Amino acid sequence: MTYTDLVEQIRKKGSFLCVGLDTDIKKLPAPLRDSEDGVFEFNKAIIDATAPYCVAYKPNTAFYESLGVKGWDALQRTVAYIRNNYPDMFIIADAKRGDIGNTSSLYARAFFESMDVDAITVAPYMGFDSVKPFMEYGGKWVILLGLTSNPGSHDFQFLTDAHGTRLFEHVLETARSWGDKEKLMFVVGATQGAMFSEVRRVAPDNFLLVPGVGAQGGSLDEVAKWGMNRDCGLLVNSSRAIIYASSGDDFDRAAAAEARKLRDHMTILLSTYGVI
Amino acid sequence: MTYTDLVEQIRKKGSFLCVGLDTDIKKLPAPLRDSEDGVFEFNKAIIDATAPYCVAYKPNTAFYESLGVKGWDALQRTVAYIRNNYPDMFIIADAKRGDIGNTSSLYARAFFESMDVDAITVAPYMGFDSVKPFMEYGGKWVILLGLTSNPGSHDFQFLTDAHGTRLFEHVLETARSWGDKEKLMFVVGATQGAMFSEVRRVAPDNFLLVPGVGAQGGSLDEVAKWGMNRDCGLLVNSSRAIIYASSGDDFDRAAAAEARKLRDHMTILLSTYGVI
Repeated sequence: MTYTDLVEQIRKKGSFLCVGLDTDIKKLPAPLRDSEDGVFEFNKAIIDATAPYCVAYKPNTAFYESLGVKGWDALQRTVAYIRNNYPDMFIIADAKRGDIGNTSSLYARAFFESMDVDAITVAPYMGFDSVKPFMEYGGKWVILLGLTSNPGSHDFQFLTDAHGTRLFEHVLETARSWGDKEKLMFVVGATQGAMFSEVRRVAPDNFLLVPGVGAQGGSLDEVAKWGMNRDCGLLVNSSRAIIYASSGDDFDRAAAAEARKLRDHMTILLSTYGVI
Repeated sequence: MTYTDLVEQIRKKGSFLCVGLDTDIKKLPAPLRDSEDGVFEFNKAIIDATAPYCVAYKPNTAFYESLGVKGWDALQRTVAYIRNNYPDMFIIADAKRGDIGNTSSLYARAFFESMDVDAITVAPYMGFDSVKPFMEYGGKWVILLGLTSNPGSHDFQFLTDAHGTRLFEHVLETARSWGDKEKLMFVVGATQGAMFSEVRRVAPDNFLLVPGVGAQGGSLDEVAKWGMNRDCGLLVNSSRAIIYASSGDDFDRAAAAEARKLRDHMTILLSTYGVI
């Protein structure tokens, strides 16, 4: 999906919501937990219920890998289901991959050819040759870890050089020389609050994928205030608060209600900041 | 596997060789390339041929993921084959994972429970809560990226703070407060040559997993000279030079010959530096 198409979807739907498909077999409603194909059935129901309110889905690969071959199969079919039934949806493999060049090429093959997602999250530690292979596909994206939402983000991401530049700023700046806003987004956690203005100083025009709203404590208003640009420039992810909104039979309706609530909030923010 | 058991295996075999199972379907000898189960059959033959000369195997997950469900299945069966037939072998999933705490726990479940490898490589960017879940399994190891072997290692790993400490040194130092030498190794690329002495200043007693000997240009003598400690403290990986030593029917015998040559060289180094 191109940058222009993504912005168009956001304007059309009044939403910059990404639904995180962090589907943990242990947390599914009882009948699905015991079903042979529970993970896929759950995802399918969540997708059908929330598709009107979001522009992106983000399965995190860890949840599928923990189930071995069966999980990997459920992931592939989930991606195919979205692709076939909601062709305007932006699909992100939250995989946080990254390896030496020839190996990253194989990850790119896995996610962009075998699976046909639009974007993959990538870890920056190994530098340019670990990231570039993901940028060689037309209409596909790298979403590079910038400033993450977890407590451990403070261990290394804020390390400061002699000129006062922090590691995450180096990552943003350096990565921007590898590809433009049509190919490159950054992960910036909602828990980082006012740091968004500093991220925007370095990366004014890149989309930011923002986890951490909801369960991890980040605020949507803060994120929009500091992070939104004239094309929106944000994909805000919510996983647990949507997909586990109810643990009963009404899980899909509850998920739809949560997603709609977030969409309504987002429509107001898009309007407030002049994007729509 | 415990630290003591690993050192014992190294002394017994006169080898600190790790064979990298970077099995690319496109590079297999013709009959295997066209076989339904070629990747597993190739791995099985390589393992049987090289087991006398090495102490560890390291499948890189990218090569298996690129084949989708079939690849993931081949990976699981490869690990099970080593576990069942060569129970003293140290098995490393070269996966370079790392995510927020509750998600890293699922990767740990995938690799340490579903798959039962001994160790997994992990990327440090997200800090302690992304690494710790892998340390909560008895006899299992984290191998954290320290100083990698690829050109992109220079993008961020050498960033220097106001006191002259580089990012990779921060990573080594900080991670050592999360777990001891029984749980924690570091990846240090053989291409980094004399940097090994600087790594050893910060991490004298941790095992180092060393890629980059052979195809990537690193020297085994240099690595041993600067990196070996009294328990050896090194696992040197070779992938392409061994598994693709011949592209003909004799690929397994050629792999054995390459592995034996490296083992012979390693026995001399272990003796030179007083480990055996």
